[in-house]
Amino acid sequence: MLPTRRTRRSGHITLVGGGPGPADLLTLRAAKALAAADVVYFDRLGPTEDLAALAPRATFVDVGKTPGHHKVAQEEITARMIDGARNGLHVVRLKGGDPFVFGRGGEEMAGAVAARIPVTVVPGISSAISVPGAAGIPVTHRNVSHLFTVVSGHAPLAAHEYTHLAGLGGTIVVLMGIGTLPALIAGLRLAGLANVTPIAVVENGFSHAQRTTTATLDSIVDASSTCRNPAVIVIGDVVNLAGGNDLAIPNFLADAGLQSA
Amino acid sequence: MLPTRRTRRSGHITLVGGGPGPADLLTLRAAKALAAADVVYFDRLGPTEDLAALAPRATFVDVGKTPGHHKVAQEEITARMIDGARNGLHVVRLKGGDPFVFGRGGEEMAGAVAARIPVTVVPGISSAISVPGAAGIPVTHRNVSHLFTVVSGHAPLAAHEYTHLAGLGGTIVVLMGIGTLPALIAGLRLAGLANVTPIAVVENGFSHAQRTTTATLDSIVDASSTCRNPAVIVIGDVVNLAGGNDLAIPNFLADAGLQSA
Repeated sequence: MLPTRRTRRSGHITLVGGGPGPADLLTLRAAKALAAADVVYFDRLGPTEDLAALAPRATFVDVGKTPGHHKVAQEEITARMIDGARNGLHVVRLKGGDPFVFGRGGEEMAGAVAARIPVTVVPGISSAISVPGAAGIPVTHRNVSHLFTVVSGHAPLAAHEYTHLAGLGGTIVVLMGIGTLPALIAGLRLAGLANVTPIAVVENGFSHAQRTTTATLDSIVDASSTCRNPAVIVIGDVVNLAGGNDLAIPNFLADAGLQSA
Repeated sequence: MLPTRRTRRSGHITLVGGGPGPADLLTLRAAKALAAADVVYFDRLGPTEDLAALAPRATFVDVGKTPGHHKVAQEEITARMIDGARNGLHVVRLKGGDPFVFGRGGEEMAGAVAARIPVTVVPGISSAISVPGAAGIPVTHRNVSHLFTVVSGHAPLAAHEYTHLAGLGGTIVVLMGIGTLPALIAGLRLAGLANVTPIAVVENGFSHAQRTTTATLDSIVDASSTCRNPAVIVIGDVVNLAGGNDLAIPNFLADAGLQSA
């Protein structure tokens, strides 16, 4: 008689891009992954509204920074996800924006691959493109900008990076850059970017607190003194496409993206 | 007696980012806009599978290039959408990727604004970030690349753009760049980008025909001789993160993004 074979459910990890905040900017594929999740690792950068409804079978683990607490270290997050998958769980790592845009998704993917855990990535709407759009600013526009560069504001750039960013032209998008904005502006001015270059700071994109502050290279530091992260900074002539016309600022705050007035 | 007031339904235009191809990479918001659409203007760059099911009330207008036919001119598309909205219709313009990444969405938005038609934009998953990801290549990665530039391959770049792209470092992503690849490579080499810089060409991202061709700056033109658009070209050290390990290439082709083996 053959030995009884136990069916062991195979676990896996899905890195899910959660988009810029609203739950309805998740993809259908992301919603399906959440619906099947046994455990969801999330932080404040991903969508947090309606999570329980989106992942009704899941337990939730908050790995983000909370007031008075340190955030969970990246290696620890990866290790815990791998443990979960080894125990047969469908593990979802829900991240803000896209997992591969400053999201450390590449590290989590590499960790899972090294541990021989099946891993899949569901792309998400990156705030680098969508938050400027929510303020009526297209990152590319015919005869205005035919390329764009996305940088993180978490650390100042090197001198040669300022030089080539200023020289390249096109649109520059900076994520989470309020803290390093004075250094960025000083670096770009020193590198020769024109003082009249328009800049927009879009805070709290896609939320009811969304606010756009527009100025030029030589005035944005003063103009943005009350701005706080999360914010997306847009530098370049495309900023003028939204200028002065409220109708050019789509109202993303209404449900379904359907504006009726 | 008061005169009878006829209720006139107000039309509007929604520019919808359709993502990189699969219908389940639409956002929930995009699906809702399609479900409410009276007319959908689409082309071959957006998702075309299941369109009738996604927009059951809509009539469909193909404004893309088809064999033996010219595509509909941009001004004509915008004018027809405005006419539709003026007649009270919910008009959806479904575009590939994100409407503001080389999608001419800014022009359609501006046209609607000028005509005083309410217009809303639903962001989409851009192939600039997601197609490299589908090949296991993160556009940013800690200690490897902390910035990325996205350019269109539709026209060769100017000399100063090659210089600053080569000098900036980070990741370079080129959309629809097969036709101009020899010019791109020549320009970047002349500008001093190292011959050993890794390059990947990812064709037909997210489809069953997805194929990745990897080489270096000095060998990619020969190596990619059979490559065709639609393709996304990725240049930079992040390309090596996917190298040689099939497990690092997530299988996006299975449904729900859930890989089980």
